[in-house]
Amino acid sequence: MKPITLEDLNAASKADFVAVLANAFEHSPWIAEAAADQRPFATIAELLAAMIQTVQQAPLDRRMALIKAHPDLANKTQRAAGLTADSNAEQNGAGLDQLSDAEYAAFERVNTAYRNKFGFPYIVCVRRHTRDSILRDFERRLPNEMAKEIEQSIAEICRIAALRLDQLVSGGERLAVNGRLSTHVLDTHSGKPAAGIPIELIEICALGKNRVIARAVTNADGRTDQPLIHGRPLPIGQYELSFCTGLYFAKKQVPLSDPPFLDRIPIRFAIAEPEGHLHVPLLVTPWSYGTYRGS
Amino acid sequence: MKPITLEDLNAASKADFVAVLANAFEHSPWIAEAAADQRPFATIAELLAAMIQTVQQAPLDRRMALIKAHPDLANKTQRAAGLTADSNAEQNGAGLDQLSDAEYAAFERVNTAYRNKFGFPYIVCVRRHTRDSILRDFERRLPNEMAKEIEQSIAEICRIAALRLDQLVSGGERLAVNGRLSTHVLDTHSGKPAAGIPIELIEICALGKNRVIARAVTNADGRTDQPLIHGRPLPIGQYELSFCTGLYFAKKQVPLSDPPFLDRIPIRFAIAEPEGHLHVPLLVTPWSYGTYRGS
Amino acid sequence: MKPITLEDLNAASKADFVAVLANAFEHSPWIAEAAADQRPFATIAELLAAMIQTVQQAPLDRRMALIKAHPDLANKTQRAAGLTADSNAEQNGAGLDQLSDAEYAAFERVNTAYRNKFGFPYIVCVRRHTRDSILRDFERRLPNEMAKEIEQSIAEICRIAALRLDQLVSGGERLAVNGRLSTHVLDTHSGKPAAGIPIELIEICALGKNRVIARAVTNADGRTDQPLIHGRPLPIGQYELSFCTGLYFAKKQVPLSDPPFLDRIPIRFAIAEPEGHLHVPLLVTPWSYGTYRGS
Amino acid sequence: MKPITLEDLNAASKADFVAVLANAFEHSPWIAEAAADQRPFATIAELLAAMIQTVQQAPLDRRMALIKAHPDLANKTQRAAGLTADSNAEQNGAGLDQLSDAEYAAFERVNTAYRNKFGFPYIVCVRRHTRDSILRDFERRLPNEMAKEIEQSIAEICRIAALRLDQLVSGGERLAVNGRLSTHVLDTHSGKPAAGIPIELIEICALGKNRVIARAVTNADGRTDQPLIHGRPLPIGQYELSFCTGLYFAKKQVPLSDPPFLDRIPIRFAIAEPEGHLHVPLLVTPWSYGTYRGS
Repeated sequence: MKPITLEDLNAASKADFVAVLANAFEHSPWIAEAAADQRPFATIAELLAAMIQTVQQAPLDRRMALIKAHPDLANKTQRAAGLTADSNAEQNGAGLDQLSDAEYAAFERVNTAYRNKFGFPYIVCVRRHTRDSILRDFERRLPNEMAKEIEQSIAEICRIAALRLDQLVSGGERLAVNGRLSTHVLDTHSGKPAAGIPIELIEICALGKNRVIARAVTNADGRTDQPLIHGRPLPIGQYELSFCTGLYFAKKQVPLSDPPFLDRIPIRFAIAEPEGHLHVPLLVTPWSYGTYRGS
Repeated sequence: MKPITLEDLNAASKADFVAVLANAFEHSPWIAEAAADQRPFATIAELLAAMIQTVQQAPLDRRMALIKAHPDLANKTQRAAGLTADSNAEQNGAGLDQLSDAEYAAFERVNTAYRNKFGFPYIVCVRRHTRDSILRDFERRLPNEMAKEIEQSIAEICRIAALRLDQLVSGGERLAVNGRLSTHVLDTHSGKPAAGIPIELIEICALGKNRVIARAVTNADGRTDQPLIHGRPLPIGQYELSFCTGLYFAKKQVPLSDPPFLDRIPIRFAIAEPEGHLHVPLLVTPWSYGTYRGS
Repeated sequence: MKPITLEDLNAASKADFVAVLANAFEHSPWIAEAAADQRPFATIAELLAAMIQTVQQAPLDRRMALIKAHPDLANKTQRAAGLTADSNAEQNGAGLDQLSDAEYAAFERVNTAYRNKFGFPYIVCVRRHTRDSILRDFERRLPNEMAKEIEQSIAEICRIAALRLDQLVSGGERLAVNGRLSTHVLDTHSGKPAAGIPIELIEICALGKNRVIARAVTNADGRTDQPLIHGRPLPIGQYELSFCTGLYFAKKQVPLSDPPFLDRIPIRFAIAEPEGHLHVPLLVTPWSYGTYRGS
Repeated sequence: MKPITLEDLNAASKADFVAVLANAFEHSPWIAEAAADQRPFATIAELLAAMIQTVQQAPLDRRMALIKAHPDLANKTQRAAGLTADSNAEQNGAGLDQLSDAEYAAFERVNTAYRNKFGFPYIVCVRRHTRDSILRDFERRLPNEMAKEIEQSIAEICRIAALRLDQLVSGGERLAVNGRLSTHVLDTHSGKPAAGIPIELIEICALGKNRVIARAVTNADGRTDQPLIHGRPLPIGQYELSFCTGLYFAKKQVPLSDPPFLDRIPIRFAIAEPEGHLHVPLLVTPWSYGTYRGS
């Protein structure tokens, strides 16, 4: 769906404004309604801030209702009955529709334990996480007090809303909700960017199968034409970048051992900042390599 | 079994000499018998050279008999019927007693295809190879002419004999039949050797399961007390060295991201020279690392 | 002087056109005159190509006159009598007005030896060279045949003309006559760009004094706000980049030895391609560093 | 002079014992005399400890006399009049006989300022220092209280004595008074140790001329046959290791730029621990290099 411009939103009827933003907060159009009366907004960030303020100033029962309006994560029964389109896309984007049996079991345990303790669903802004990291955060949050978890849930809901707004509304500066993961390969044997190196980015899963989430080949600058992840948050989690350098040097007729000392080079690293710019380059010869966290 | 000294071998009766060396060449005591008459030998290398010369100067039918005296690789039926103790230990050392179903099938295919073409078993000095590399060499050797493969088989048999001699006889300079794989970890964050880093050396298998073949923890010098492989040939193949650096830096209270950018660092490399000295170090901070082929 | 646009040049009277471009080729307005009649030019590159073609198709005596219209390099007498403004600026830019006694002597020897052999001045596009490299090229060119040196001199004159055109005319794509030298500093101790590192770029001189040709301090991205050299050719020669990292780490209260193991890090490198993009980064901790030719 | 064994010292007459060790502490045979009566010593370290204890337990006037028995550093008049052979050798070893005019002036200023404040000479164990570091330590010590400087002077005198004992007496474990500086060069372009690389070790002087203190060429292992400094303390100070790698790669016919991007690589570093083992390796291709503090 094409986003609407902030200008058009400012000029729209209240009904149209609310229609567009009704689900920025799950099943909670009252937040958009309150925002409609505060127009015009100079930036999307101002619009978001107004909506967040409405939530934070709402009485506890409204905030609890907002929290309870959210579905469980990876709950097959709820998914069969139908989620909002946004929730569905978000959960699928994190691979929650492709869980291994062990992961389904883990998520079911999490949902139940959390609901049993707090009486509301475990809410995470899943676009900022991998499956492993959703489960890892649960372990940290379960011991919390009720008040702390209400606050944390509202914070996650506001992150979800920010990402939905970023998709729904265009115009002016974008919200700082997206990250970027990039790489480049420098062939220090020839002193030039390494072109034509196949790269895979793999999400490492503790309970399920690792999955390839991006494939690219380096261009003449030793970079990929597009960042490996961009235009969305970088999901917190463990990754492997895999660089096929053996064939590259073989094609250049560089003398190699048999089998080549280095062939497919794996770089394992973690993403910790979903909104950050992370650059993970490779400096490589047939006999050595190095990497570092760049920016 | 305690090795006998070269001095004692030189002084032994012919019968005792042959008893010790009878199986240096599989089921072929005639080679030891010929060597007995050429005593004394100044070095083990001279003894080996004399035995090899005996083989190479033997008429074709004796050489063919020597070749045919060898068992198939990973042949369950033959193994059940009993191999020589040496053959058994050598095959087990290469993991040929722990094959996956896919590997058994591959070895059976190899043995059959090779026997069908040449009329004798596929012989490889298995202590110089991983399973993957045994199968890979087969693909290269199968297209050969008969004469070339007779020569290659004799060469492999002589390598097997050299390794058996190295175990059987002591005294003076050892045969150059063994390699060494070592590592060390340098913490370039503190400018000191990294002590207490757990390391695993894993053999990578294409058809079967990867297997951990060495575990160690770095000492105060950032080295392992023993080389990761030593006192034997380095099996040609693919390996991963895995260094657990995340916990090391966490214990030193170095500020890290959450999760840590680097946690378990894998270095994938190949061994190509069984008799070589290969050093694969790691230079590491919480945010960068490098490795190279050292010696 | 503000450059004139190509559009205005195309529309100018012939007299005005020639007035602007008269000295693109030293004291040789006839080349601009010929170009005036070939207007309009779609690009500056087309204009340059037309002028070069005029030179190359001119009879030998005109080409010899063009060559002889050039001054000697670093000739005090000629400089006192007055060079064209362009020649003067070019020679000063290469430091030919600040020579050591040994360098003056070397240049005098070069000029004399070259004139004695060929009967015309030694011509080099000095903006593409350091003093060392001008003298080094002389050693290579002096043994040449006359015909080869006429050709080489014309080639240098065309390079000079291209650089003058690049200054005189604007509009559309610029000529590919300029290079760029940049750096950045990555602090792999903290995993972040190193901000606030003072950097010096020093031209290394064999016969004279080294001279600092750029100073900068790294910004929040670990880069310099401007490339160290840009908007001009990179002079062929030897350089040192000097990075003051000791104080940087001391200010961050990183534990250091006393005196610090690394304090002022020198990177010595050569520039070989005046029109290239050369990136010389530093990856550094208090105990280690690395650099490479990037692009 | 050939050192005497500890065994012989233990067995010697008191007169002979004192004759050997009389000048371990400058002009102060009473310390050796006291030690003679405490024989036998199991180790040289025990002998040294006994002598140090004698000094520390001596009354203040004896300690002051010991301090005042020392010459000034780099004092031309005193040197002309004659120092003890030990003092002379130690001062010359630190280059105090080869000072620039600026350095002489600095040392004279130091000696005078120190004597004026404390009434005794400025004492440093010069074998543990470069000229720069002697002057740098002065700046730190001059503001001290008298008591602190008496203690510091005695500590320096004991270091001098330990180094003299290490030269005079042999047998058993040596005193831990010496350091080692080593290097090696790894050619990561070919994955092998770099043999035949000329190396210079240069002491960097702030006030005087830099001086080459070791020259070596790498052997087949990429190491130098001898450590660059060994069998003596590493003088605290600034150094440059210079590696001529350009010619090395040119000889191997590796494609290079002209001039080569890297030719003579300087590594500037400081020595801070005179008794330490410092390893400063170079990992190098024609287009990249790295170094680190190893051990």
